[in-house]
Amino acid sequence: MTKKKIGVIGATGYTGSELVRILKYHPEIDISIITSESRAGEKFSDVHPFFQGIVDDELHTADMVDDMELDLVFLALPHGVSMDYVKRWKDKKFRVVDLSGDFRLDSPEIYEEWYKKDHTFAEGFRNSTYGLPELYKSKIKTAHLVANPGCFPTGSILGLAPVVAKGMINGQNIIIDAKTGVTGAGIKANVVTHYSNASDNFKAYGLKFHRHSIEIQSNLEKSGRIAPNIQFTPHLLPVDRGILTTAYGQANNPTSQQELQKVYQDFYQNMPFVRIVSKPPSIKDVRASNYCNIYVDYDERTNNIIMISVIDNLVKGAAGQAVQNMNIMFDFEETLGLNHIPINP
Amino acid sequence: MTKKKIGVIGATGYTGSELVRILKYHPEIDISIITSESRAGEKFSDVHPFFQGIVDDELHTADMVDDMELDLVFLALPHGVSMDYVKRWKDKKFRVVDLSGDFRLDSPEIYEEWYKKDHTFAEGFRNSTYGLPELYKSKIKTAHLVANPGCFPTGSILGLAPVVAKGMINGQNIIIDAKTGVTGAGIKANVVTHYSNASDNFKAYGLKFHRHSIEIQSNLEKSGRIAPNIQFTPHLLPVDRGILTTAYGQANNPTSQQELQKVYQDFYQNMPFVRIVSKPPSIKDVRASNYCNIYVDYDERTNNIIMISVIDNLVKGAAGQAVQNMNIMFDFEETLGLNHIPINP
Amino acid sequence: MTKKKIGVIGATGYTGSELVRILKYHPEIDISIITSESRAGEKFSDVHPFFQGIVDDELHTADMVDDMELDLVFLALPHGVSMDYVKRWKDKKFRVVDLSGDFRLDSPEIYEEWYKKDHTFAEGFRNSTYGLPELYKSKIKTAHLVANPGCFPTGSILGLAPVVAKGMINGQNIIIDAKTGVTGAGIKANVVTHYSNASDNFKAYGLKFHRHSIEIQSNLEKSGRIAPNIQFTPHLLPVDRGILTTAYGQANNPTSQQELQKVYQDFYQNMPFVRIVSKPPSIKDVRASNYCNIYVDYDERTNNIIMISVIDNLVKGAAGQAVQNMNIMFDFEETLGLNHIPINP
Amino acid sequence: MTKKKIGVIGATGYTGSELVRILKYHPEIDISIITSESRAGEKFSDVHPFFQGIVDDELHTADMVDDMELDLVFLALPHGVSMDYVKRWKDKKFRVVDLSGDFRLDSPEIYEEWYKKDHTFAEGFRNSTYGLPELYKSKIKTAHLVANPGCFPTGSILGLAPVVAKGMINGQNIIIDAKTGVTGAGIKANVVTHYSNASDNFKAYGLKFHRHSIEIQSNLEKSGRIAPNIQFTPHLLPVDRGILTTAYGQANNPTSQQELQKVYQDFYQNMPFVRIVSKPPSIKDVRASNYCNIYVDYDERTNNIIMISVIDNLVKGAAGQAVQNMNIMFDFEETLGLNHIPINP
Repeated sequence: MTKKKIGVIGATGYTGSELVRILKYHPEIDISIITSESRAGEKFSDVHPFFQGIVDDELHTADMVDDMELDLVFLALPHGVSMDYVKRWKDKKFRVVDLSGDFRLDSPEIYEEWYKKDHTFAEGFRNSTYGLPELYKSKIKTAHLVANPGCFPTGSILGLAPVVAKGMINGQNIIIDAKTGVTGAGIKANVVTHYSNASDNFKAYGLKFHRHSIEIQSNLEKSGRIAPNIQFTPHLLPVDRGILTTAYGQANNPTSQQELQKVYQDFYQNMPFVRIVSKPPSIKDVRASNYCNIYVDYDERTNNIIMISVIDNLVKGAAGQAVQNMNIMFDFEETLGLNHIPINP
Repeated sequence: MTKKKIGVIGATGYTGSELVRILKYHPEIDISIITSESRAGEKFSDVHPFFQGIVDDELHTADMVDDMELDLVFLALPHGVSMDYVKRWKDKKFRVVDLSGDFRLDSPEIYEEWYKKDHTFAEGFRNSTYGLPELYKSKIKTAHLVANPGCFPTGSILGLAPVVAKGMINGQNIIIDAKTGVTGAGIKANVVTHYSNASDNFKAYGLKFHRHSIEIQSNLEKSGRIAPNIQFTPHLLPVDRGILTTAYGQANNPTSQQELQKVYQDFYQNMPFVRIVSKPPSIKDVRASNYCNIYVDYDERTNNIIMISVIDNLVKGAAGQAVQNMNIMFDFEETLGLNHIPINP
Repeated sequence: MTKKKIGVIGATGYTGSELVRILKYHPEIDISIITSESRAGEKFSDVHPFFQGIVDDELHTADMVDDMELDLVFLALPHGVSMDYVKRWKDKKFRVVDLSGDFRLDSPEIYEEWYKKDHTFAEGFRNSTYGLPELYKSKIKTAHLVANPGCFPTGSILGLAPVVAKGMINGQNIIIDAKTGVTGAGIKANVVTHYSNASDNFKAYGLKFHRHSIEIQSNLEKSGRIAPNIQFTPHLLPVDRGILTTAYGQANNPTSQQELQKVYQDFYQNMPFVRIVSKPPSIKDVRASNYCNIYVDYDERTNNIIMISVIDNLVKGAAGQAVQNMNIMFDFEETLGLNHIPINP
Repeated sequence: MTKKKIGVIGATGYTGSELVRILKYHPEIDISIITSESRAGEKFSDVHPFFQGIVDDELHTADMVDDMELDLVFLALPHGVSMDYVKRWKDKKFRVVDLSGDFRLDSPEIYEEWYKKDHTFAEGFRNSTYGLPELYKSKIKTAHLVANPGCFPTGSILGLAPVVAKGMINGQNIIIDAKTGVTGAGIKANVVTHYSNASDNFKAYGLKFHRHSIEIQSNLEKSGRIAPNIQFTPHLLPVDRGILTTAYGQANNPTSQQELQKVYQDFYQNMPFVRIVSKPPSIKDVRASNYCNIYVDYDERTNNIIMISVIDNLVKGAAGQAVQNMNIMFDFEETLGLNHIPINP
């Protein structure tokens, strides 16, 4: 079997870099082109020097793709830019995994409300699916366009889907208190990512109106028979990678940790990247890997279900999940090329 | 006026070290004795070398205090040990600020339930008060024994007292998601404080049964007309100092950020260490100082009141607050010797 | 005695912020004006929010100083900008402590060679002195313009001056391997200070041609009877504050740690901020304080003298030393307002 | 071809954990046994929970190996313990890669001098070789016992061997100023690895007498025609992984960066894990990978050759290099199972 031909569109950020890190030794694909508008002509390893001697491919501009025969492209582009390329290549045969937020929500209208910008390719939503493999595997298999989930939504939805689907949690007021590493803010230097502002520090941001709220809410709604009310508060941790999500909601009926763990184990049976754990997990337990560890508990005193999940925001929260989606789209083993053991410490 | 004579009992931990740091240049007191059972005979600066040339006092055993005339002693001792010294010195004239948890709760019985050990000096509760100056200043002024609050309770109670007191928050299910720096676990090396377990990492611990739950609950109950139901979850941050507390609860009536801020400003009027801030605070905003910054918000969509507070766990959460209590007990200016500006970065 | 009137020129950076932190509670001065060209009209605490409620002074433009009667101004301005203000105010009576590099070297010519820019106020060198109090106290006392030393030179010169002055070290090839915290790179976000580039990381930079080489070399030359050859290599540590300097040089004659310690203790007798320590120091031993800890050793096997010093780059390496200079200029106690105990942890 | 049967002896530390991480997906071997005396009976993933679902093998005591047919065992044991197992299994057919220091030096006598303990198996030195593949590949191929190098020596020797071999550097006084991450101190909690002692901090340790001095010196001596004099000073970085080594020595003849780079490129031609880089490297450039990046420079002003190398202390400095040795011993491709791309950030 010949290997699949892959394009990585937009390789100067962390997501692009992680994609190449994972794809480089994937046994069934070849990276046919890596693009960057701002650094075209340079080598990939000029932009990311730790790849020196490993990936020294030249960077090209994305228009080169117009004339190429590829099997799939990953779009590792900013929100609002991805949609232009989806549109540009709408008649190409290759399939697309888009790591931006452009096609994650249910309609252009909802996008415009939460992203505060126009959507220029409504048609794209027709052949697209939300790329959370644990919930939507069969749709992903045949989708032309896969909208790779946001990092926060991945941890939150995976962590809450079982109790929502089973109707065990009261959706009236689900509190999601999430904490992310700094790479979530991207590779570009700014006041938030300035070392002395982030290091030894911790704070909340984006209260009430973070756009991941709607992405979480919408997918939990599809999981269950409820229209949940989500209070989502992200915080910034002084670490590079990792998201830990702590969620709270009232139980509809008294339950127990044991019962909850069983529900989660059943729900994620045969899903190789979700691990149900019996102690509160830490973000290093999954660092640099595609795993999502989930802990669930019940407090009799307060009747709250408490859920804690951890992922690596750049892997299961972005590039790793994108490759998992690709594997599903090509009918490969879901774990192919993704058997990275967490780096700890 | 002669200076007050002070004893610091138990000086090998972080709390003892911070006490000495703050007391050393306090203009109205003299440190008459510093004790350590395990390091007696050595110099204070042998135990804490950064004090070399600043505080080179010899460490003594605590029994030396039996024959001394002091005005006040700080007990910086482990839970369960403090009560022995309170008992031992019950007939001495000096007053006591106890930084342990031994007299923080309402009765020996509640202590025994949450601390899982016997209380050997029930009598001590009679002349003691909970030492949160912003709530109990007049009692502290005359108390013989002040039980200095726990670090988590300080941030949580200060952050929630106004909305509880005003009856604005529904006490049925208050979620307190708290995050602390590693110094909260003490100076002793163990698996939790091992660098490679704490660094670049983040996790929850002590779910459901953390003993600070009852301390928070009990004091909020006194603040308002409700018996609140508190879900308290602490997490461990990869930083030395600082606690950030994010709390959520349903509003009893629709409100607004503006109204809430006004309530908080009024509640903490003329309280020099509480700062009501208009943006989500970060822990470096108060590091190495006695300030508590509080942010409060309201989400119309979910009807939640969201409160975020930050303190330095070793200062406002321990030694600084202890000195603030001492100032009140001696009728000094409340801020005397406590005008440390936060260290940032 | 009326308090001295002080101006802080350029308050948006870390040096300006540290100056205000230290000066705010200095008992013998008043901060009469704080300036910032870019943020004039805002409050100081808008720029540095952790000062909220402590220093809420309005920021002014520097031209307001033209008409003020001040006793001293601190220039916390970038290299190349300071000299313009020194020139502008050359006929004013107030004295100047310049925290930039503009007047640190011996002549405009040397400045131009190492800073690669024109010097526009050569005259300034006539009434200026290099502000390292431990070496030049008597000159500082009467100087009109004090050029506050660079952060690296402070640690290197203090650490090596005794053995150079005593002729104990061979100047032919002194290796200075220095390591600094990230605040040394300033408050402005850039690729070097981007969290994920600095955190968990470590690297050398500025090899061979760092401008602090000449500042160190020139002052060691004045200390001894040698024209030393300095190999200076700075490295970037993943910490906010602190410089640790490790230096190596051949001994001119066999010596011992004991003899060396004695030499250092004698050299720095009665100098309150230098502490000669008997174990290798760590940067937290001096954090947020004006101390410089120095360790010195001798290796018989290799005949090398090994010296290790630590300072806080923002305090003894900048703002603290500037205030120490001010104290000397005004004949105050050298430690006045500078009794900050290190923050550890 | 049947897969090789491998034993990992001592799996509770970081080295054991890294070995399993690397060996797990090595295509030509099977892990036949993992041992731990203290945790036997538990699962490997009980000790290292991030392996849950990946490596859940039961841990055994080492005596089980007595009756097994293996092809190779890795000893991930403390210094002084390894030699007992080498002795115990001296008549077994399997080959041994020892990650301790027990057989790294040239003789039992030198071992006893630097390690301050008796060596109980002198015979072991006869069939052993020092396992630095870039220098001793042909010996490793046939060795029965490979003494895997220390972490510091790996970075130092690789960095200096070319200029020593070519006689370009004066061996009289080579300064090696090395900086390591905290994992170098092991998995066990102690005062050095206590979070608040290591975090935000930096210090030197082990001056003059660190046992890695002799390991470096001895191997450089074999590389060149000189008996070098090494001044080795390790420092502790607030990072988990990584060693950066900065070395200085006088050039025997004037040279240039260009000439030096050429020498290094030639010396390491066809050695897949050494990368000669043209800018000072950082430790994240090699994190979690088996690469060693080397930068070399020359300063005309001082006549010093300056060398900077970086490795991951747990990979190229321990487990990765051990697997590289195994590959050579089994005539596998040297990079087999070792194609981990650095994790950055």
